[in-house]
Amino acid sequence: MKVAKFGGSSVASAEQLRKVADIIKSDSERRAIVVSAPGKRFKEDKKVTDMLIELGDAYFQHAGIENELNEVLERFKNITDELELNSAEIVDQIREDVFYVLNDDREDVLKRDGLKAIGEDSLAKVLSAYLQSLGMDATYLNPKDAGIIVSDEPGSAQILEESFDEIYKIRNKDGIFVIPGFYGYTKEGKLMTFPRGGSDITGSIIAAGIRAELYENFTDVDSVYSVNPNIVHNPKKITHLTYKEMRELSYAGFSVFHDEALIPAFKAKIPVCIKNTNNPSSPGTMIVSDKKAGDSPVVGIAGDSGFLSLYVSKYLMNRELGFGRKLLNILEDEHISFEHTPSGIDDMSVIIRSSQLTPDKEDRVMNRIYEELHPDTVSIDRDLALVMIVGEGMDSTVGIAKKATDAFASENINLEMINQGSSEVSMMFGIKASRLDDAVKALYHAFF
Amino acid sequence: MKVAKFGGSSVASAEQLRKVADIIKSDSERRAIVVSAPGKRFKEDKKVTDMLIELGDAYFQHAGIENELNEVLERFKNITDELELNSAEIVDQIREDVFYVLNDDREDVLKRDGLKAIGEDSLAKVLSAYLQSLGMDATYLNPKDAGIIVSDEPGSAQILEESFDEIYKIRNKDGIFVIPGFYGYTKEGKLMTFPRGGSDITGSIIAAGIRAELYENFTDVDSVYSVNPNIVHNPKKITHLTYKEMRELSYAGFSVFHDEALIPAFKAKIPVCIKNTNNPSSPGTMIVSDKKAGDSPVVGIAGDSGFLSLYVSKYLMNRELGFGRKLLNILEDEHISFEHTPSGIDDMSVIIRSSQLTPDKEDRVMNRIYEELHPDTVSIDRDLALVMIVGEGMDSTVGIAKKATDAFASENINLEMINQGSSEVSMMFGIKASRLDDAVKALYHAFF
Repeated sequence: MKVAKFGGSSVASAEQLRKVADIIKSDSERRAIVVSAPGKRFKEDKKVTDMLIELGDAYFQHAGIENELNEVLERFKNITDELELNSAEIVDQIREDVFYVLNDDREDVLKRDGLKAIGEDSLAKVLSAYLQSLGMDATYLNPKDAGIIVSDEPGSAQILEESFDEIYKIRNKDGIFVIPGFYGYTKEGKLMTFPRGGSDITGSIIAAGIRAELYENFTDVDSVYSVNPNIVHNPKKITHLTYKEMRELSYAGFSVFHDEALIPAFKAKIPVCIKNTNNPSSPGTMIVSDKKAGDSPVVGIAGDSGFLSLYVSKYLMNRELGFGRKLLNILEDEHISFEHTPSGIDDMSVIIRSSQLTPDKEDRVMNRIYEELHPDTVSIDRDLALVMIVGEGMDSTVGIAKKATDAFASENINLEMINQGSSEVSMMFGIKASRLDDAVKALYHAFF
Repeated sequence: MKVAKFGGSSVASAEQLRKVADIIKSDSERRAIVVSAPGKRFKEDKKVTDMLIELGDAYFQHAGIENELNEVLERFKNITDELELNSAEIVDQIREDVFYVLNDDREDVLKRDGLKAIGEDSLAKVLSAYLQSLGMDATYLNPKDAGIIVSDEPGSAQILEESFDEIYKIRNKDGIFVIPGFYGYTKEGKLMTFPRGGSDITGSIIAAGIRAELYENFTDVDSVYSVNPNIVHNPKKITHLTYKEMRELSYAGFSVFHDEALIPAFKAKIPVCIKNTNNPSSPGTMIVSDKKAGDSPVVGIAGDSGFLSLYVSKYLMNRELGFGRKLLNILEDEHISFEHTPSGIDDMSVIIRSSQLTPDKEDRVMNRIYEELHPDTVSIDRDLALVMIVGEGMDSTVGIAKKATDAFASENINLEMINQGSSEVSMMFGIKASRLDDAVKALYHAFF
């Protein structure tokens, strides 16, 4: 049994949904289907979820919602008309769903979650009806009935462990199930949406729950690339990737998907395949537990800006037992998680995502460092980007560092930081954010 | 006013003491003279301090001490005879000093400290008498009278802050003062010796106290070398070194002196000059606060084995706020100070001096890591050496990392760790201990 998840661009139009149906039909193991809400058909197009968010905004500003609602209904009418489904009935149902949420006595924040979920929910119903119209044994399956039980955190629900045994029961049913992504229900029956990457999360949860042989994630690219195609033209495709490699690439700004989305599948050791709805015969990228022998040690180059370095120096720091621990403690008290801590004898830097250190936290952290640690100097450099070379097996390869530093030197890029020595999967460099693209290009050309 | 400190080999014989007298005579600013006990005259020779330690061992084993005592007296008799001093009087005084310490009612550990100090103390008296015999205005100055007040820690006394104002009063006196190194007195008047590098510590304390214009440290080498001459033949001399550079070089196994010895001089910003008693016209190595413009960015290469890496990995570690802090906390509870903490997304290594992690501490640390942090894997690699490239101004030089990694790759040396990013003074590499000499050689040839 396979789980196939189709993203926003894969379900954006009737034409795309016909491709989806073909894909489902071509493999009888594809029985758990997870869908996003219709996304963009072209660059300037609007996603249905964004329409629903605007509808909510209008409602809470006590403005009329007719324009926004019509936009949503129009989009679904187009799709269902083209698919020759009973569009009047479907459109009526969506209108009813919207007013049901708005007129319900739940809290405002839950109304917003409820509205946002209508995109996925309606599309799942549409796809299920379309598959039925093609003579397939397909059923719409609500997340509540699928067993997706989540924590009570509107907009950023977390899956509860008990869900997986519930979800496993889907295996015993016949036919194809179309499940809307992006949301689940608390034990008390309240609808909550997942954080960013929501439909990917649902797919991953279902795959883990039913112990799928494969979780197929259908997107609009043929594969994961070894570098961001917006920086390097026509880069090498990655055919195999390990979970660890994927996680490191996501960390460093690879946007294929949010790595959090794959955690349930990773934990259950379900292989994941990234495929293209528009080119399903392309093999895509397999994400698996273990590296295949003979694979190249380096699989990808990634980079991300938005980091800062907090630098603390104090003469004789290395004789002061507990200095590093005390510094990390101050950050922890402010709920700031750190990324790395390169250290010298008398100084220590802490690399942090800039968004973590808000101005008020910065004030408190700086004050406490001065008062509790009595440093000689403290400074913050907000202009930091991290670039990573990712690949399992790098640790046993002499010369990776040489190749990388040669590349930086040839582009005259100064290295603010090098972090290597713990992860066996990556080597990390800190550079000025303004040189990020140059650095990624130079590394790509050195390794590929 | 300058402080001149003469080490063991500089005061090992009458011939050496004549050189010392010439050096003192040649500069009227050399008024505070600090001396070690007589050291080795040739490779197989015995240091007076070692003789005194053996004397103590014999005494506490209730064996006769005559042989050991005679060895000490003989050595001083040789020196004073050759210098045409009243050797009978001096030898009698030393014998008296030894029995005074042994018959005193102080604790055994303080008797050992008292015995050890007799080497420096007697040599200071000899040198003072010799300078007087040459017509110079020289006086022996006991550390108590010099104002060296220390903590009550036999064998590893620490200078107390209040000493410096006392020591400053020496400035107001005329003539030359010869002060024995290696020990001081507690407020209660108990004699305590300093830890390793004791006479260097005394020199540094006196220099700080009298606000010397220069602290000259006379040894038996012309200068500090850019790399260990036992590894690289005839290496480049260092003419200028900053305190920070000196500290990093000492940290990584440079044995010119224990960096702790220079701390009082560093803190008081007294320039230090390393000179050769046997070749005083050689300019030596100046250690100063600030780098001179135009100096080469890299001043030295150093390396040391005896490190271990404690590796901890846990899936999703980077989402676990406080993981790093908790790990450091466990080490701190065992009084283990760490050197560096390279980290990946899901793993973290802690680099520790191997001697810090005794087998019983290792058991407790490992148990606590398992019980409190629930890691996926924990392992210890005891085969680690650190190699450092040292130089202020390296941070602004593109290509240092490239040159270094080129050198490692050409020697096929795998990099276990790279730590760069906080210290502006050094770049550090972790390698297998067995490759340490090769690594140091390769880096030396790359940079010099």
